Amino acid sequence: MSRPKPLSGFPEFLPAQRIVEQRVLAALAGTFELHGFGSIETRALEPMAQLARKGEIDKEVYVVRRLHAEGTSDAELGLHFDLTVPFARYVLENSGHLNFPFRRYQIQKAWRGERPQEGRYREFLQADLDVVGQSALAAHHDVEVALVVLEALERLHTDFGVPPVLMRVNNRRLAEGFYRGLGIDDHLAVLQRVDKLDKIGPDAVRALLTGELGLSIEVAAQCLELATISAPDDSFVERVRALGVRNDLLDEGLEQLAAVVRAGAAAAPGRIVADLKIARGLDYYTGTVYETELSGYEHLGSVCSGGRYDSLASDGRTTYPGVGLSIGVTRILVPLLGKGLLTASRSVPTCVLVAVDSEETRGEADAIAARLRARGIATEVAPKADRFGKQIRYADRRGIPFVWFASGEVKDIRSGEQVAADPDAWEPPADDLAPKVSAR
Amino acid sequence: MSRPKPLSGFPEFLPAQRIVEQRVLAALAGTFELHGFGSIETRALEPMAQLARKGEIDKEVYVVRRLHAEGTSDAELGLHFDLTVPFARYVLENSGHLNFPFRRYQIQKAWRGERPQEGRYREFLQADLDVVGQSALAAHHDVEVALVVLEALERLHTDFGVPPVLMRVNNRRLAEGFYRGLGIDDHLAVLQRVDKLDKIGPDAVRALLTGELGLSIEVAAQCLELATISAPDDSFVERVRALGVRNDLLDEGLEQLAAVVRAGAAAAPGRIVADLKIARGLDYYTGTVYETELSGYEHLGSVCSGGRYDSLASDGRTTYPGVGLSIGVTRILVPLLGKGLLTASRSVPTCVLVAVDSEETRGEADAIAARLRARGIATEVAPKADRFGKQIRYADRRGIPFVWFASGEVKDIRSGEQVAADPDAWEPPADDLAPKVSAR
Repeated sequence: MSRPKPLSGFPEFLPAQRIVEQRVLAALAGTFELHGFGSIETRALEPMAQLARKGEIDKEVYVVRRLHAEGTSDAELGLHFDLTVPFARYVLENSGHLNFPFRRYQIQKAWRGERPQEGRYREFLQADLDVVGQSALAAHHDVEVALVVLEALERLHTDFGVPPVLMRVNNRRLAEGFYRGLGIDDHLAVLQRVDKLDKIGPDAVRALLTGELGLSIEVAAQCLELATISAPDDSFVERVRALGVRNDLLDEGLEQLAAVVRAGAAAAPGRIVADLKIARGLDYYTGTVYETELSGYEHLGSVCSGGRYDSLASDGRTTYPGVGLSIGVTRILVPLLGKGLLTASRSVPTCVLVAVDSEETRGEADAIAARLRARGIATEVAPKADRFGKQIRYADRRGIPFVWFASGEVKDIRSGEQVAADPDAWEPPADDLAPKVSAR
Repeated sequence: MSRPKPLSGFPEFLPAQRIVEQRVLAALAGTFELHGFGSIETRALEPMAQLARKGEIDKEVYVVRRLHAEGTSDAELGLHFDLTVPFARYVLENSGHLNFPFRRYQIQKAWRGERPQEGRYREFLQADLDVVGQSALAAHHDVEVALVVLEALERLHTDFGVPPVLMRVNNRRLAEGFYRGLGIDDHLAVLQRVDKLDKIGPDAVRALLTGELGLSIEVAAQCLELATISAPDDSFVERVRALGVRNDLLDEGLEQLAAVVRAGAAAAPGRIVADLKIARGLDYYTGTVYETELSGYEHLGSVCSGGRYDSLASDGRTTYPGVGLSIGVTRILVPLLGKGLLTASRSVPTCVLVAVDSEETRGEADAIAARLRARGIATEVAPKADRFGKQIRYADRRGIPFVWFASGEVKDIRSGEQVAADPDAWEPPADDLAPKVSAR
């Protein structure tokens, strides 16, 4: 076999990079569990019918079949392209065994056959957090999921030096109510065009609204005016009110969005804004919508998105409304790791390397290692009874900070300091026990 | 959408079962890292050419293609069916960036399109541990990987009540040397037939050896005699010697196997035996081979297998010998969880539910929850300001042990005991902080 080449769009990490990823995932999962969200995992494969949306199959799906499946009646399967579709299926399949509101997180890979580019991969890791109710779900969960996710992302910033985020929040009811208050019936047609604001600019959007949809210049101006409103607090409510439109759905949307932004600004100041042009596509969101930028990496697109869907799943009798967010772990990590901006202090979990005097006395080194491990100190034994200089280089190449000698001494190979030590009592400095992850 | 049905061969866990799986995985990963093994993950997809063995493609592979891939030049891809093939590819691809001997573990799903049955799944989780050298790898690593894996499996037994294991070890050199010492050239042909001993019995094997291979009755008897030898210590060496066969390769195999069993018996008494009929297929193993039974679940087959392969990977210039084991996590957990023999003490991470007096004062409950979380106590806030009886039932259904009232009291809902408490100081009993996993 000659040296294989990487597959474009399928990123893999070297051991030190994987340590960063492990820490990031542990911080996310730890925050989620602290808030009472439990983990689930779903199978990687779903029937193609489940992966279809509104009858149409998303074109980026990977279809899976057994190599020798001819003549069998296997259902056609595909790799899931997100964690929402399988989660909705899981909720329906297990609804009799779940307690609602059901709070879950899910950290798994997903696959899309898209053209690979920075921030877009064919295999990528997502960390999803959702609350799902049976028939109903209170609006305060829209606040809760945003706060939990902001807390998790803030932890990545403070603990590891991942850049800070800015979450932009909007509410579908707000926009729909506003448009209806202006006498517009097809609010989705307006939303669709206003959504292009950042891409094509206000003049082009105005032309679409007056041309394609036949809105008056005044009404089109109101729609554009709404989309330009953004604020780090609930001051946006007054600015919307000042536009003079009155509608019950608008009031409901304003109230919900104000609640999210007020709580977010209190818990995570500077990390959240109301941004009334955010639409998040048109498919299933029905209330709050979220998008999140990584500061300095805005070109990657949103690294954490989601929203409220009033019927995530339905079995015909019962509807399951939900609200949740999905963190694009691969989208965040691959650029930062690729540029070496996030690093682990060593490439192995090992804190201590026990040197071996001779192959005959390897058992003594093994015994010392076992005593260190019994107290939670990750330890390996040198693979070869080379001269000590070579054994120290073995540790150095991996970033292992300490070398233990059978003579009963331990050496910090960074400072060169060597002291007598007891394997049943010696403790490394807390910072050296496990690899440290930090920004460069 | 009507209620979906499970896909046969693709097991999924309910939240409480997933907690058991999380704990088991953390115990395995924790043990591996304590011994200086680092984590890697490889992509789920490999080029079909990589999944081919000796030019032939394993018939259970799942082939993957983009739904709209017609006319493109995408390489044909398949889902990996184990973690060894992708690991070998990873080592070759990244050899310039790895330090050898390279010690890694890998916990990931794999897929095989086999007919599903108990102990055999189409999607399953493996936990692999290997050491790989560049050009050479010392024999003491054959001892090491067995000890690390036995320690990890023993931890599942003592911490969670997973049944104990029995690891059966053999050595290919031993068998090959013995057969060669008997004047047999085609040792693989003999091994292949002796491997059927458990299935077809000694008489039928003897008939194959004398009939198909033309061995004399005496030589066939010697081969059978060797296969019946098993011992929990190195006493097997003398029993093999007593058969009177002399060969250098046999000596080497005896010495290597004795080293593994001696160290295993010392570190994990009763958990390891030398068993000279173990063959583990015929493909790539070249020295030590391992198989492991779960006590009381022998019908599942081996739950942890592996061996020494003198060329795990080769790029034409350099060969990478390795030794490792693969734990069948799904094979162990699905039967135990399905029978309810392993359980978590609750279905959520939550330790405390903060009750809500009224929706107007939800913010006060949120503030109490935040103070508990700041000290690592997993806390959620009741989703609805129902009367307290209903909020307590919310906790009870999930197994949440404590309910906190804004009045400044906390109630253990199992004993009914209610005491005044300070959210900045109160600690739950250590056993209640996280869900407990135990055997029933």
